[in-house]
Amino acid sequence: MFYHVKELQYHAKPDRPDPIFAKKLQEVLGGQFGEISVALQYLFQGWNTRGDGKYRDLLMDTGTEELAHVEMLCTMIARLLDGAPVGDLEEAAKDPVLGAILGGMNPQHAIVSGLGAMPADSVGNPWTAAYINASGNLLADFRMNLTYESQGRLQVCRLYEMTNDRGVKDMLSWLIARDTMHQNMWYAAICELEEQENIVVPSTFPRKLEKQEVAYTYFDLSRGTESSKGRWASGPSMDSLGEFTYVENPPPFGEKPFIRPAPPYMFNTPPHILKHIPPHRG
Amino acid sequence: MFYHVKELQYHAKPDRPDPIFAKKLQEVLGGQFGEISVALQYLFQGWNTRGDGKYRDLLMDTGTEELAHVEMLCTMIARLLDGAPVGDLEEAAKDPVLGAILGGMNPQHAIVSGLGAMPADSVGNPWTAAYINASGNLLADFRMNLTYESQGRLQVCRLYEMTNDRGVKDMLSWLIARDTMHQNMWYAAICELEEQENIVVPSTFPRKLEKQEVAYTYFDLSRGTESSKGRWASGPSMDSLGEFTYVENPPPFGEKPFIRPAPPYMFNTPPHILKHIPPHRG
Amino acid sequence: MFYHVKELQYHAKPDRPDPIFAKKLQEVLGGQFGEISVALQYLFQGWNTRGDGKYRDLLMDTGTEELAHVEMLCTMIARLLDGAPVGDLEEAAKDPVLGAILGGMNPQHAIVSGLGAMPADSVGNPWTAAYINASGNLLADFRMNLTYESQGRLQVCRLYEMTNDRGVKDMLSWLIARDTMHQNMWYAAICELEEQENIVVPSTFPRKLEKQEVAYTYFDLSRGTESSKGRWASGPSMDSLGEFTYVENPPPFGEKPFIRPAPPYMFNTPPHILKHIPPHRG
Amino acid sequence: MFYHVKELQYHAKPDRPDPIFAKKLQEVLGGQFGEISVALQYLFQGWNTRGDGKYRDLLMDTGTEELAHVEMLCTMIARLLDGAPVGDLEEAAKDPVLGAILGGMNPQHAIVSGLGAMPADSVGNPWTAAYINASGNLLADFRMNLTYESQGRLQVCRLYEMTNDRGVKDMLSWLIARDTMHQNMWYAAICELEEQENIVVPSTFPRKLEKQEVAYTYFDLSRGTESSKGRWASGPSMDSLGEFTYVENPPPFGEKPFIRPAPPYMFNTPPHILKHIPPHRG
Amino acid sequence: MFYHVKELQYHAKPDRPDPIFAKKLQEVLGGQFGEISVALQYLFQGWNTRGDGKYRDLLMDTGTEELAHVEMLCTMIARLLDGAPVGDLEEAAKDPVLGAILGGMNPQHAIVSGLGAMPADSVGNPWTAAYINASGNLLADFRMNLTYESQGRLQVCRLYEMTNDRGVKDMLSWLIARDTMHQNMWYAAICELEEQENIVVPSTFPRKLEKQEVAYTYFDLSRGTESSKGRWASGPSMDSLGEFTYVENPPPFGEKPFIRPAPPYMFNTPPHILKHIPPHRG
Amino acid sequence: MFYHVKELQYHAKPDRPDPIFAKKLQEVLGGQFGEISVALQYLFQGWNTRGDGKYRDLLMDTGTEELAHVEMLCTMIARLLDGAPVGDLEEAAKDPVLGAILGGMNPQHAIVSGLGAMPADSVGNPWTAAYINASGNLLADFRMNLTYESQGRLQVCRLYEMTNDRGVKDMLSWLIARDTMHQNMWYAAICELEEQENIVVPSTFPRKLEKQEVAYTYFDLSRGTESSKGRWASGPSMDSLGEFTYVENPPPFGEKPFIRPAPPYMFNTPPHILKHIPPHRG
Repeated sequence: MFYHVKELQYHAKPDRPDPIFAKKLQEVLGGQFGEISVALQYLFQGWNTRGDGKYRDLLMDTGTEELAHVEMLCTMIARLLDGAPVGDLEEAAKDPVLGAILGGMNPQHAIVSGLGAMPADSVGNPWTAAYINASGNLLADFRMNLTYESQGRLQVCRLYEMTNDRGVKDMLSWLIARDTMHQNMWYAAICELEEQENIVVPSTFPRKLEKQEVAYTYFDLSRGTESSKGRWASGPSMDSLGEFTYVENPPPFGEKPFIRPAPPYMFNTPPHILKHIPPHRG
Repeated sequence: MFYHVKELQYHAKPDRPDPIFAKKLQEVLGGQFGEISVALQYLFQGWNTRGDGKYRDLLMDTGTEELAHVEMLCTMIARLLDGAPVGDLEEAAKDPVLGAILGGMNPQHAIVSGLGAMPADSVGNPWTAAYINASGNLLADFRMNLTYESQGRLQVCRLYEMTNDRGVKDMLSWLIARDTMHQNMWYAAICELEEQENIVVPSTFPRKLEKQEVAYTYFDLSRGTESSKGRWASGPSMDSLGEFTYVENPPPFGEKPFIRPAPPYMFNTPPHILKHIPPHRG
Repeated sequence: MFYHVKELQYHAKPDRPDPIFAKKLQEVLGGQFGEISVALQYLFQGWNTRGDGKYRDLLMDTGTEELAHVEMLCTMIARLLDGAPVGDLEEAAKDPVLGAILGGMNPQHAIVSGLGAMPADSVGNPWTAAYINASGNLLADFRMNLTYESQGRLQVCRLYEMTNDRGVKDMLSWLIARDTMHQNMWYAAICELEEQENIVVPSTFPRKLEKQEVAYTYFDLSRGTESSKGRWASGPSMDSLGEFTYVENPPPFGEKPFIRPAPPYMFNTPPHILKHIPPHRG
Repeated sequence: MFYHVKELQYHAKPDRPDPIFAKKLQEVLGGQFGEISVALQYLFQGWNTRGDGKYRDLLMDTGTEELAHVEMLCTMIARLLDGAPVGDLEEAAKDPVLGAILGGMNPQHAIVSGLGAMPADSVGNPWTAAYINASGNLLADFRMNLTYESQGRLQVCRLYEMTNDRGVKDMLSWLIARDTMHQNMWYAAICELEEQENIVVPSTFPRKLEKQEVAYTYFDLSRGTESSKGRWASGPSMDSLGEFTYVENPPPFGEKPFIRPAPPYMFNTPPHILKHIPPHRG
Repeated sequence: MFYHVKELQYHAKPDRPDPIFAKKLQEVLGGQFGEISVALQYLFQGWNTRGDGKYRDLLMDTGTEELAHVEMLCTMIARLLDGAPVGDLEEAAKDPVLGAILGGMNPQHAIVSGLGAMPADSVGNPWTAAYINASGNLLADFRMNLTYESQGRLQVCRLYEMTNDRGVKDMLSWLIARDTMHQNMWYAAICELEEQENIVVPSTFPRKLEKQEVAYTYFDLSRGTESSKGRWASGPSMDSLGEFTYVENPPPFGEKPFIRPAPPYMFNTPPHILKHIPPHRG
Repeated sequence: MFYHVKELQYHAKPDRPDPIFAKKLQEVLGGQFGEISVALQYLFQGWNTRGDGKYRDLLMDTGTEELAHVEMLCTMIARLLDGAPVGDLEEAAKDPVLGAILGGMNPQHAIVSGLGAMPADSVGNPWTAAYINASGNLLADFRMNLTYESQGRLQVCRLYEMTNDRGVKDMLSWLIARDTMHQNMWYAAICELEEQENIVVPSTFPRKLEKQEVAYTYFDLSRGTESSKGRWASGPSMDSLGEFTYVENPPPFGEKPFIRPAPPYMFNTPPHILKHIPPHRG
């Protein structure tokens, strides 16, 4: 259960409106790696954690913080849209700056949200839960979380370079620092789990049931052998359970497939037209 | 540029048809972490790599292999659907096994694809490129790749437990082993990059520009202090550049936001109705 | 900014697992009118409210409560999935009850989420922000909120009839009561606004700029005159500014449109093939 | 069954082409609250109405009119795109007006639709049926319809301010007036139903089965008590069946949840790693 | 502009309810090739037709008919859902037929639509305008229309085999016949256009501007030469402007690409880590 | 199984960067009719082909080529984005050309992909498998393929007119030529199948089971008789099995539908409110 306080976790006040930057900032609010994604991903992972130790608490702590980041970004975007102009673009284009503003704005910021933030990315795709996951396997999920903090911090850093507004930069520097912490944090949690489980997810599937002869084999399938120079091509495997080998021209291990004709009630192309039906395979 | 050979990378032949398992197997073909996702993600990352060293080659090698896995799964699914029955379900329900087959099948396997595989997941969501990314930052992307191999292997292991068919299990044991290799491989590549870049992505953003006072601070925002017992709550940070600190009752650092009224041409709720407009804030 | 406590707003404990009901219950978690929709809709409306009076507070209070409902549903769904079986469906079908469980489960609950709740609806569509809106006009938005509480309570009532589990029914009776309150609440807020603004949204657009001659006219466009018997067909309009009139056979008021040929660089079908190009029209 | 006449319901002829406004106008054609949404929503509600009285007729009359609005908007958009230029944007940018046109157009209007309207919104999201509903409960649905007419009229009014074209404004004034009528109409229909059913949807669920002790309780979950000043915080409830009460610091009514470990065949994180598993709960 | 009559174009009355078939029938209502797709596709193509001759009329005639098919399917689905049971599935599973009905129904038919049709396909994906197109080039569009009638009739024929209900079969036989007509019709319209334009779309792009040396060349890129036996591998091309040639081992015509490093403000992986940057290429 | 060579099928090198054209070019990479669509569509059709003759080989040959086109477009887009500027748009707008570049770019090319290609269209919609199909009926599928090559070539021709860059035009002229070949090729394959199957898909559904009296009837449902002048309105049908007839004022063949009330546990609007329930129908 949640309680809300009206104060923001950190300031979210630009020096001046900038509706074009508002459009770009939507990416880290409602994009694939935006704050809605991390907030809901961590919360769902927390709620689905079976057992109630420190990892569940870690997920709930951090998911709750990300809700505060959603709030900061919404506030910043609404302020960047303060008093944004509307009007005839061709007319406006006579003043290049005004023309650039009108042409570069997200039209939905004026038509749909009335100068407010939207749960969407920088080109207007609505946020979708297809971005996130909670698998029940924390090592898999913490790797996903580390990924999202990495991609997310990368995007915020790029946005930092796209504006001169000191208020905006101040807020972004907060988000960047929190992403630094969160990368460190998931990294630490991953290390804890890897120490107990080794690195391959899931750790509890019996290794003897997998096709072990190809479990440490590198297949070179794109002509050129630059990839033979990586750590993955020779030496002990990272899980210490095998030895990397490098295969330069990997052959197929299976045969040319043949699939039986469909029954007539499927109305597929009739078999006699597909021809070449071999007598004894299948 | 690609060349295709008709032979499969590995066998994909079930002992017998099983249209219900065909439906489930769609998850690792066309789901979030399925083979279409990894194939296209690695290829797009490879094509977008600026420079042409071993990492580009690594991505192209592996993306090309994943296309072969897409092919294997399509073949297996088509065979699991071999001769699948259609017909009146209520009628069929008199034979519980036949009823279970008809009731458990994906209806699109009969109506849409004519007993073929579909680029969709186990509940029928079409594959979407919203699942994947190629960011230009390889450490961020390799972490995403390690995540996808982790979540993907987890799903294949779960599917392994859901069938008794030896042919299906044989193919899955191949995919599980290849995911073992690919987890090891991305792990190795990540280690190489982390050695050169440290662990925080992106490594090239000047640390002094982030809000350093909160770059290693853990905020406990969900009541209960179990999370204080993790590696992330104290000791040197994982990037060796800071010291973790734990804050049990983190206060807001910002103020209660106030956003100016919208211009009249937005037709928002008029300011006098929203009331409480403070005279000197903003 | 938010704070979380681990206790649930209300109990979420079923008498026994029921993976099929878990699938159905997803609708009111991650469907169009589910708890994710109302939580994020109210929060976005609150954050976008320009001014900080009671309506902003109302939105933040209620959005925060809905997050607690998301949490309750996630918890309930995870418990309904407790120890859910997997395995060969055809085999299981010999035991009709086990067969029904395996056949009726959402396969992603086993393959993807490891027996946890998903941010998706009862047929597996991931939640999308396309469901929600925050327009800046509170009367429009409160009507949307009343709608969502109406559709949502309707769905929870239907689910109440689909189970015999007392623990589940107990939780649903909580959600139904809260929806009763929320319908009353948005209704009250709407009444307040309508008193100040009249009923047509937006109230600030000058009435003289609309085509007033059809602003209170009912057009009967589907043969049959049953619709003439409604309150909307005669008498003073609901906004008290006009008089309803009923037109039984409404004619077109415009002309047959003609659109000029496209320029050659569009490579559309050439005009001479489309023929019938009139000489003097526009 | 439908019949079409070639004449438009009302004129849809701009004074001059304006490809940028064409892009914006897409919002009310193919956006969340656009004419495709209302047309299909009313028609589906009509077709699903069980019984054939005046409400079914009302829905069919109005859904049929909305198809005419789809047609008017398509015609207007095609004309606004008349002869739209294509070409090298950097080159064009030397002429600021031409640059603004090329830069502000939706590229799909040139590449995909050949200067025609698209079933998409102003940023290019294709229309989705996830926007609409037909629930079988007319009070719930008419509230949804009133919402859509409110949000829709709001958007058309905003668009009215964004253009100087008299032909466009003339058509928009028609749509605004029709939305005035449609808001009045759904309002009237809602009043009729509320008189017979009271205001809480659904009216037929037995009130005694809901958790009545919280059916009229306002929970203040966002610090600050501005919300206590609304009609929803005290006095008789709007449905006249209860009395509003206001709770300033609402506690949790449930307990801290604990969810049992998953079975081993899920390959979730093993229970001994999640630790803190309490002995007697569950 | 449209007018509606209440009578259906053809009967839509099943012998008895069948909620499972209702689910399947959704495919041809709201799936990729369903009636919503063809209705809106033909109407958008008609409205976008620049010029007003027989092709525009053809599109409007047929789009208007498809709306009647949407109506028939909605009616049939609602009737197939008549009185559909809800309830505890495990309980119901003791009666295999009732268990099959409950397990095989689309849960949204009970929870969301109240036993009505939905604008979605047979697995619950909401209809999306991403399925359709209106390009401005009628030959391209009529080919799309012929495709949709072909895929659509195929699906209806498959559904015909899945039921024993005479009322359902009677309605499907109507739809199948209309699809026969519509395939013939688009075929005829395509022939007319091909006679005037030749077969390659668009016909007005100057042939000399394309890379003519590969405009009739077949590249064999999948090992095996079965494809050399088709009409496409030798002889005059279908457009009579070239001669098919067959290349068994097609080489690349381009070079290995190298893409320059990104600027530092992108925070991509730094160039010195990507290594292998060649000095003189680019 | 696939093998990759690093060389491109054809050159993909622009004369100079052009980030705005990069955005537009995304349409034919990741749009509805882009190269991802054709690559995956042909491959899925090939893998689902039951039987292994020349049609399967044709599909695999061509799907494999389309992967090379995906690669060419990715390479071209990355190069068009070479060194693309970021920065404050209002500032940049003082230089109209720079302003046009910044305003016209896809912001995700800078924020998300780090100046790389994305699997999305020209307005940023991620590619979705909802665009494609593999039905098991090759005549239906080849018609779909011909459609995609027609719409695709149309789009590439339009893009050809939108740039002056000789390098870009050179690559587009390759794609246009390949689309010429592919249109010819599918056309040829279609002719082969039509010769064996006649033109109506599916050919194996018994003609006597369809409602033959309307299988060749043209219904004029949009007032105006221009459509009577087409080949589809009279004369022998294209499949030679019937005679086209033209009906100017087609009546309904069905009756006004009535649907029974829903059971009480659906909580729909109660029947007595819907009224007009006829005593003897249904």
